[in-house]
Amino acid sequence: MRAVDIIMAKRCGKELSPQEIRFLIGGYVAGEIPDYQVSAWAMAVFFQGMTPAETAVLTDVMLKSGEVMDLSGVPGPLVDKHSTGGVGDKTSLILAPLAASLGIRDPMMSGRALGHTGGTLDKLDSIPGYRTSLSAAEFKQILLTDGFAMTGQTKDIVPADRLLYALRDVTATVESIPLITASILSKKVAEGADALVMDVKYGCGAFMKNPEDAEKLARSLVDTAQAMGKKIIALLTNMDEPLGNMVGNFLEVEESLDCLEGKGPADLMEVTLELAARMAVLGGKADNAAAGRALCEKALAGGKPRELFLANIKSQGGDVEKFLSMRGNYRSPHSAEVCALQDGYISHIDAWKAGHAGVDLGVGRNRTDDPVSPTAGIQFLRKRADAVKKGDPIMIVWGKDGASLAAALPQLAEAVEYAPAPPPARELILKEIGA
Amino acid sequence: MRAVDIIMAKRCGKELSPQEIRFLIGGYVAGEIPDYQVSAWAMAVFFQGMTPAETAVLTDVMLKSGEVMDLSGVPGPLVDKHSTGGVGDKTSLILAPLAASLGIRDPMMSGRALGHTGGTLDKLDSIPGYRTSLSAAEFKQILLTDGFAMTGQTKDIVPADRLLYALRDVTATVESIPLITASILSKKVAEGADALVMDVKYGCGAFMKNPEDAEKLARSLVDTAQAMGKKIIALLTNMDEPLGNMVGNFLEVEESLDCLEGKGPADLMEVTLELAARMAVLGGKADNAAAGRALCEKALAGGKPRELFLANIKSQGGDVEKFLSMRGNYRSPHSAEVCALQDGYISHIDAWKAGHAGVDLGVGRNRTDDPVSPTAGIQFLRKRADAVKKGDPIMIVWGKDGASLAAALPQLAEAVEYAPAPPPARELILKEIGA
Repeated sequence: MRAVDIIMAKRCGKELSPQEIRFLIGGYVAGEIPDYQVSAWAMAVFFQGMTPAETAVLTDVMLKSGEVMDLSGVPGPLVDKHSTGGVGDKTSLILAPLAASLGIRDPMMSGRALGHTGGTLDKLDSIPGYRTSLSAAEFKQILLTDGFAMTGQTKDIVPADRLLYALRDVTATVESIPLITASILSKKVAEGADALVMDVKYGCGAFMKNPEDAEKLARSLVDTAQAMGKKIIALLTNMDEPLGNMVGNFLEVEESLDCLEGKGPADLMEVTLELAARMAVLGGKADNAAAGRALCEKALAGGKPRELFLANIKSQGGDVEKFLSMRGNYRSPHSAEVCALQDGYISHIDAWKAGHAGVDLGVGRNRTDDPVSPTAGIQFLRKRADAVKKGDPIMIVWGKDGASLAAALPQLAEAVEYAPAPPPARELILKEIGA
Repeated sequence: MRAVDIIMAKRCGKELSPQEIRFLIGGYVAGEIPDYQVSAWAMAVFFQGMTPAETAVLTDVMLKSGEVMDLSGVPGPLVDKHSTGGVGDKTSLILAPLAASLGIRDPMMSGRALGHTGGTLDKLDSIPGYRTSLSAAEFKQILLTDGFAMTGQTKDIVPADRLLYALRDVTATVESIPLITASILSKKVAEGADALVMDVKYGCGAFMKNPEDAEKLARSLVDTAQAMGKKIIALLTNMDEPLGNMVGNFLEVEESLDCLEGKGPADLMEVTLELAARMAVLGGKADNAAAGRALCEKALAGGKPRELFLANIKSQGGDVEKFLSMRGNYRSPHSAEVCALQDGYISHIDAWKAGHAGVDLGVGRNRTDDPVSPTAGIQFLRKRADAVKKGDPIMIVWGKDGASLAAALPQLAEAVEYAPAPPPARELILKEIGA
């Protein structure tokens, strides 16, 4: 078997055999196949695609390149949610304790902010004392006692993905649906969940800008996960505007707690409850999404999810009292307001622009080794469809320092669009794909 | 400027600027851009193509990666012919002295046999004493005195092509029309010719299997050379069957001399004269191809091209008397005949199969460092459309040794197809493209 023949077959649009995929990618991870062959293959995949069967094999090869979390002995159902990334998207923090309150265990391995999208680990790191680097034994133990545990991926989990992603990043081969699918699924399967809910976002603040591309990715995720014997449901959700009222690390933890206390903003609650409903279905707690949603609403009203959230903070080393005392006041001293530039209605708040302003403020990062600020961020006082008068405050903005604040403010002013009449209603959940 | 953005632009089908091409390929040759980015770019080029303007810039960057032959002071016109490679294709050996007899100088830099196709240098090397590694000064001097000179490319000529070709060879990106174009033209422009005749072959024994692909390559060569200010004509010629009656190194030199003596086989003479006619036109010696051909036929009849051929052998260190005495008897002792398997007409002799059998015999090579035999080869006693009776000899075959002969014979028997009636006439020259 020769790598060049495998590249040629893919270039010509042929389906590769499991042996060929294992030879190429397994060989790459083992250092036997050079990067220049893998990058040429990745570009051929960009143009020719892969079948779900091929993608499943690729996912499996990647998965087996490293450690797989052994959750044997942890009673299921084990259900996790994964989002393709957005601005103000803190649903993970709410979903894990909510699902746990239904008796579903969520083994959550999360990533960090990159580019305009936020990262769950950075948010959790803003909680005083909270540890996001658990050992496998700790992760398993906390998952058993709390019903969920939240940690980062160790370097031993799917090393093939880091290797391949780094190569794709510099060879313009990131935007390939099957390669994205294998990257996402290999990490999710490695964390040990039995079933997955995928939040595939579309819109200006999402990786996929239009619903058609998002649907292609969702179908690929569903088809591939099913080919691997995993249960999965994907929702296409809108990411044209920031989700909820808070964008920031500690700010988003706070807003998650608000949601667990029944005080969450409508858009965030809608997306969270629809995702939670699917976790309930996949976890066998409800026959359909409507029943699942009702179960979740009832659980939230009962207060158990909030209790589990605080218990987990304690389990993972956090100081719950201190955390609660910081609520509403753990903010950077460098702050300003963005005010309405005209009378009328807010017709759009651009998530892409807000996300990039957030990076400048210190919420996120452009490079994987940039530091982030726990106290930087944006609080939206008004959102889409709200009536405003010129000069009304629309956002409170906190920067990690004065310069970053000054850089972000004009971008944020520009992120807001106005209209003389209220904009049409926006579909938050476009479609469900899968089981 | 970043390489990844250049790859992305090509991936998206955009035309790259001259600066971008210089940055990427110039940087690659300088060791500043890694091979994994260039291979991904090459695959994107395979799918998205390049405009003639882009291809011209790529050619120019490659050309300038090394030495360019300085032929200033050599009176023109300087016209060369290049073939995309075939089986039994010895037209270069005939064309150079023929063009020189018309007052056209041919600065010919040739390559070696690879795969099923032969190489001019290997043929010349079979002439006793003949030197194919001339210094630049020798090349120029012989070109001045003989009207043509024949040498190999030094490693200082277009090093970018060797680098890029080696990368393309292992990343399944060889078959890209603009990349092939730049590879061919950079070497031809580097040798210093003012005008080029391209013999773009199609058929089972050619690199391009069908006329459509050959025409695409011919158009790309013509458009790109014209964008670089060079005069060029391309002919599409048939390579379904071996050209002429001889396939081998010394055998083909012999047959070239036969042609120069007016005893050449019809198919070989037809292709040679049509190519020569275009050299005459580009060299300003004739107004059109018909007039050019008449001029060439007259020159051959006068015997001057034969004189120049022998004079060049002497100039390049060869022993003319010894060479002439070897004619008809410089053959490997390991020989056999291939005979007709049935009565009827020969309907096809497969050039691809004959070429590969030739490699086994020792005519060509599979790897660039394999040795070749001067005395191995095939002499066709009968060709397409000839009537045969079962047992009639069709070929005399010489192998470098007994084992290679034994390996080649069944392949050669299989290369011959029979029919009860003569096959339809074959078009040798399909189309002319360019000036």
